[in-house]
Amino acid sequence: MVIDERPIGVFDSGIGGLTVVREIIRQLPGESVLFFGDTARLPYGPKSKETVMLFARQNAHFLMNRGVRSIVIACNTASAVALPALKQEYSVPVLGVIEPGARGAAAATKSGRIGVIGTRGTIASGAYEKALLAINPDFEVHSAPCPLLVPLAEEGWVDHEITRSVIAEYVEPLLEQAIDTLILGCTHFPVLKNAIRQVTGGEIKLIDNAIETARSLAASIGPNPDPGRESSHNFVVSDVPHRFREEAELFLGRPIGRVERIFPEHLEEIYGEQ
Amino acid sequence: MVIDERPIGVFDSGIGGLTVVREIIRQLPGESVLFFGDTARLPYGPKSKETVMLFARQNAHFLMNRGVRSIVIACNTASAVALPALKQEYSVPVLGVIEPGARGAAAATKSGRIGVIGTRGTIASGAYEKALLAINPDFEVHSAPCPLLVPLAEEGWVDHEITRSVIAEYVEPLLEQAIDTLILGCTHFPVLKNAIRQVTGGEIKLIDNAIETARSLAASIGPNPDPGRESSHNFVVSDVPHRFREEAELFLGRPIGRVERIFPEHLEEIYGEQ
Repeated sequence: MVIDERPIGVFDSGIGGLTVVREIIRQLPGESVLFFGDTARLPYGPKSKETVMLFARQNAHFLMNRGVRSIVIACNTASAVALPALKQEYSVPVLGVIEPGARGAAAATKSGRIGVIGTRGTIASGAYEKALLAINPDFEVHSAPCPLLVPLAEEGWVDHEITRSVIAEYVEPLLEQAIDTLILGCTHFPVLKNAIRQVTGGEIKLIDNAIETARSLAASIGPNPDPGRESSHNFVVSDVPHRFREEAELFLGRPIGRVERIFPEHLEEIYGEQ
Repeated sequence: MVIDERPIGVFDSGIGGLTVVREIIRQLPGESVLFFGDTARLPYGPKSKETVMLFARQNAHFLMNRGVRSIVIACNTASAVALPALKQEYSVPVLGVIEPGARGAAAATKSGRIGVIGTRGTIASGAYEKALLAINPDFEVHSAPCPLLVPLAEEGWVDHEITRSVIAEYVEPLLEQAIDTLILGCTHFPVLKNAIRQVTGGEIKLIDNAIETARSLAASIGPNPDPGRESSHNFVVSDVPHRFREEAELFLGRPIGRVERIFPEHLEEIYGEQ
């Protein structure tokens, strides 16, 4: 049997996508991962569709150039905007985080009343609503853009009174709609899970896309015939910003090894060559 | 007498720099302005020096290509990192926002105890401290990075209890140092001036760089011989993000006219040609 040793490619606008890498490492032992974080041009959340599409294409080309066996778009905004196009453009499996999150929520809800929180870009796209209604047209979906949660997570205020107040401000209108399930529609939000739970209470199920996405990936590429084999986890970013290591380890949940840097122009060169 | 009709070029990582444009329009009637906001790649605050330097050079080239008579770096992070290099590289006057802010604070302080708030990039650069100590080595400077204030301003929470709590969290350690003057070292902060004043109280002087920078610019280019002449204000951005117009008008303080868009690759092309 031939073992596919090519790494799983994962990209994000920044380092929030490391919450997905963390789950891939946990759920798919023995698989190598190549992560690219576009830290020079982050965030994607507030930017226009055209710009996000362009950046996503460049990032996917970069990963393909490095010989990945699949592409995981570990960014809700980029998944919402670019998944259909990238699926068509590549022969390897391309996964986003939105469909897995929607499937997880559909399995968890009893009342069919589902809340979604995310960046402005993700919420404006209506991508979660579409994915949920495709599963069950009777679902009732309530969404709220939460642009301040990304900077709060990056500031490391994960257990802070102000963070709970901001979450309450954003989430209370959803709670008033009697949702029983809440999708954390941004890869930064899992690190705020405790603070979010303090606002929502224990009754409401929180759907963590990172867990669901790693599960979908495992289903898509099949079981690893040799989970004990040596694997590598490599990290490439377009900038090494202030406090990079500290933030990256918060999202990855373990020390991050060597980090390679590639300038944004180089992404465009690779893209131009195709 | 020959009147210089070329516009004043102003660039920023995003649209916070429109607070500087607002003051230029107010203080220099009859002067045309060409503003470039790098909204596709914002923010610069958390990014590394190398990346900020590269982006600043591309932005300056773009403005020069359009025939500006001077360049105002209306971004604290880019001023801190790129001003000395850009001054050397161009024959037109190049101004940042840091030296004017420092001069304003030096004129305002009585005790010589000066506070500075800004992004991580600006504070980490130590640029305000250097500029203030060059004016008077006896000044005592206390600084605090305030990364959450930019997203709060962009969210439009300019008069919000949470914003006041965040400001208090950041600024109280400076107040404990008995500062009598506080530099608003980020072009986003003037829109939060009321909230900041509610935290600092009326005794502490707030230095608004936008006002000081327009004053320095007026001194540098001299009086306009025909302040009543027709002038144009043009706005170019690298992305038109969600809620662009709403946010832009908050910072500019007036309706914004036609906005031109130029993709980031084009900035790099222009830069490559030089």
